[in-house]
Amino acid sequence: MECLVRYMRATIFQGPGKIEVQEVPDPVIKNPDEAIVKVSYCCICGSDLWYYRGLTHLDVGNHIGHEFMGTVEAVGEGVRNVRVGDLVVAPFVISDGTCPECRVGMTRFCRNGRFWGTGGYDGGQGEKVRTPMADGTLFAIPKSRMDDHMMRAILPLSDVLSTGHHAAMCAGVGKGSTVAVIGDGAVGLCAVAASKRLGASRILLISTHEDRAELGERFGATDIIAARGDEAARQAKALTNELGVDCVLECVGTAGAWRTAFGLVRIGGNVGFVGVPHDVPDVSVSRLFSTDIGVKGSGASAAHYIPELMPDVLAGKLDVSAIFTKTISLSDIAEGYRNMDERKEIKVLVKP
Amino acid sequence: MECLVRYMRATIFQGPGKIEVQEVPDPVIKNPDEAIVKVSYCCICGSDLWYYRGLTHLDVGNHIGHEFMGTVEAVGEGVRNVRVGDLVVAPFVISDGTCPECRVGMTRFCRNGRFWGTGGYDGGQGEKVRTPMADGTLFAIPKSRMDDHMMRAILPLSDVLSTGHHAAMCAGVGKGSTVAVIGDGAVGLCAVAASKRLGASRILLISTHEDRAELGERFGATDIIAARGDEAARQAKALTNELGVDCVLECVGTAGAWRTAFGLVRIGGNVGFVGVPHDVPDVSVSRLFSTDIGVKGSGASAAHYIPELMPDVLAGKLDVSAIFTKTISLSDIAEGYRNMDERKEIKVLVKP
Repeated sequence: MECLVRYMRATIFQGPGKIEVQEVPDPVIKNPDEAIVKVSYCCICGSDLWYYRGLTHLDVGNHIGHEFMGTVEAVGEGVRNVRVGDLVVAPFVISDGTCPECRVGMTRFCRNGRFWGTGGYDGGQGEKVRTPMADGTLFAIPKSRMDDHMMRAILPLSDVLSTGHHAAMCAGVGKGSTVAVIGDGAVGLCAVAASKRLGASRILLISTHEDRAELGERFGATDIIAARGDEAARQAKALTNELGVDCVLECVGTAGAWRTAFGLVRIGGNVGFVGVPHDVPDVSVSRLFSTDIGVKGSGASAAHYIPELMPDVLAGKLDVSAIFTKTISLSDIAEGYRNMDERKEIKVLVKP
Repeated sequence: MECLVRYMRATIFQGPGKIEVQEVPDPVIKNPDEAIVKVSYCCICGSDLWYYRGLTHLDVGNHIGHEFMGTVEAVGEGVRNVRVGDLVVAPFVISDGTCPECRVGMTRFCRNGRFWGTGGYDGGQGEKVRTPMADGTLFAIPKSRMDDHMMRAILPLSDVLSTGHHAAMCAGVGKGSTVAVIGDGAVGLCAVAASKRLGASRILLISTHEDRAELGERFGATDIIAARGDEAARQAKALTNELGVDCVLECVGTAGAWRTAFGLVRIGGNVGFVGVPHDVPDVSVSRLFSTDIGVKGSGASAAHYIPELMPDVLAGKLDVSAIFTKTISLSDIAEGYRNMDERKEIKVLVKP
C-alpha cells in the first residue's frame, strides 16, 4: 500500500517584509480532539503587520494568520461540538473551553491555549487548518441564509469585532454612555459598532482619514474628530461640556494614544485598551486615585464573545463587513500585506 | 444693641499627636446656600490618623473631622433640600450636586468641592457645622424609628460604608462574584458588607486580628485568611481552584497591599482600590494587558451613594454599626485618637 501525501497551500513568514505562499503537506488529524477545517475565507490582521514590519519577532518559517472560517472536513473521535460539513468560525487563540480561565470567560488566557501558526500548528492564511481542542475553538454557523455578504460579516468575529467589543466591555460601555474611540483601523471601527450595539448615546471617532471616518459614521460614530493628540482631546472635551467621555476605547497601543486617552476620559471614566502596548509608560496609581479613571484591557477572549455576538451578526444588527476593503486570492497575499502596510486598505479578505 | 457671640466646642489639630477641643465662635450662615447642623454623632476616621501620625501634612489650627450627622438648626434662604429640624447625614466631601462631575455621580470630584475643616470651614468633630452647598451636601434621614442603633448604622454612610461600597463598585462586584478584601479596618469591613449586599457568593477577608475577623464574618465574609502578603495570596489561590478571585478590594494603600492584590486576583479580574496610595509603584500597562486585570479606585463619591444605600440601612439590611467599638464624648476625643492610633479600637464614635 502506498501512502499518498496531498499538498495544500499555506502562507509562510519568511522574515520582515517577506510573505510567501508555499505548498505544504495537507494537515491530518493527530489527536482525538482535533478537526480539519477547509478555509473558505481568511484575512490579514493589523497585528500581522507587527511581524511584517519587523517590530515583533516571529520565527522565519512560521505559518501565519489567525482569522479564518470554513467547512469542517474531518474530526477526531473525541470531538463533540462540531461535525464534518459544519460551517465554522475560529477565534484568534486556540482554547480548550474547560480550564478554570476558560470557564470564567477568559479563553484568551486558556491554560492549554495555543497560537495559530506557531509550534507546528497551521496558520489561518492557508487552504486548511488542523485545529486542536476543536470543541473549545470552533463555532458552528447556521448555513441557511449564508452568502458572501454574511460570511464577510461573520469572519470579523474571529478577531477584530470581538476585540472592538472587548474594548467596549473593558471600558464599561452601556446604555447612554459617551464613548471616544482612538484608532480608525479595523479594530477601532469595530469598537464603534460594538459601542453602538451596547447602547452608547454618543460615539466620538478620532480619525484624520476621510474614508475611515465615513465608515465609522456608517457603523455608528456620532462625531468625527479629525485631529490628533492634545488637539483631539481638546475637541472631545469641548463636545462634552468640558467633562470628557465616560469610556475611551484605546485601539492603537502607542504612548501617544494613551496620552490622548487620558486627555479625553472624564473623571470616573474608564479606558478600555486593546492595542498591544508598545512603549506605553507605566501608569501612576496616585494619578488614577486622584481621577477615579479605570484602566482595563487585553487581547479579547473571542471564543467567549462569539456565541454572544453571532446572533446579532446573523440578524443583520451587527454588520462590519465593510471593513474588508479589498478581496484577493491566496496567491496574491503578499500584495495584500503590502496594501495593508501602506494603509491603502483597512482590511484585506483572502479567499484561498 | 449688643451683639451676643455664642461659643461651641470643636476639635482642632495642633500638630502630629496633638488633638485639642477648643471653644470657638458658633457658626453662623454666611451665604444663602448654607445650613448649620447641630452634630449629634460624629467619628474619627482612619484617614485622620495620617495627620495625627504626621505622615500627611495638615496646617496647625485646622478644624478636623469629616463624618457627622445631626439636626439642621438654620438654613440660608437659597436652601431647598433640607429644612430646620431635619435629621441629616453629610458625606466626607462638600459638593454642589450640580456641576458636570456631580451630575455623573462623581461628587467626590465636584468642581466647587471643599473639604471639611480647611479654608475656614468647620470640621465634623465639633458641636456644630456650617455646611456650604447644603443642597448638594446634606441628606435628610426619616426620623421615624430612629434610635441610637440606627444612628450608628447610618453614620458610616458619610465615609467608610460609602468607601467600602465604592471599592466593590470599582472592582465590579456583582451577583456570584468571588471577592477578596485586603484591609480589616473600618473600610475593609464595610467593603465586606457592601460585597455581600451586591450579591458576592464568596468573600475572603484577609485579617490576622481575631476580633476584626469575627466582625468580618458577621458582615458576610465566608473565609478568613489569617496571613499576609504572598502567603495570603497563596491561600486565596488554593481556595479558588488556583484561579484567584474575580474582585480584589484594596482598602490599605501600601505597596505591600497592592502586591498582595495582584497576587490574589484572577486573570480578567479587577482590583478596586480605596486605600489612599502611599508609595505604591506605578503599574505596567503591558502587565495589565497580559493579564486583563482592571484597576480602578479613588475616594468615594459618598453623596452619590448615600441615596442608594440609605434605604437598605433603614431596612436593617445593611448594618455596619458594629464597627464603632467605642463611644466617647467630645471632651475625650484626644483619647479616642490614641485608641485608634494604637489599633485598640476599630472606629470611635463621638457624641458631642
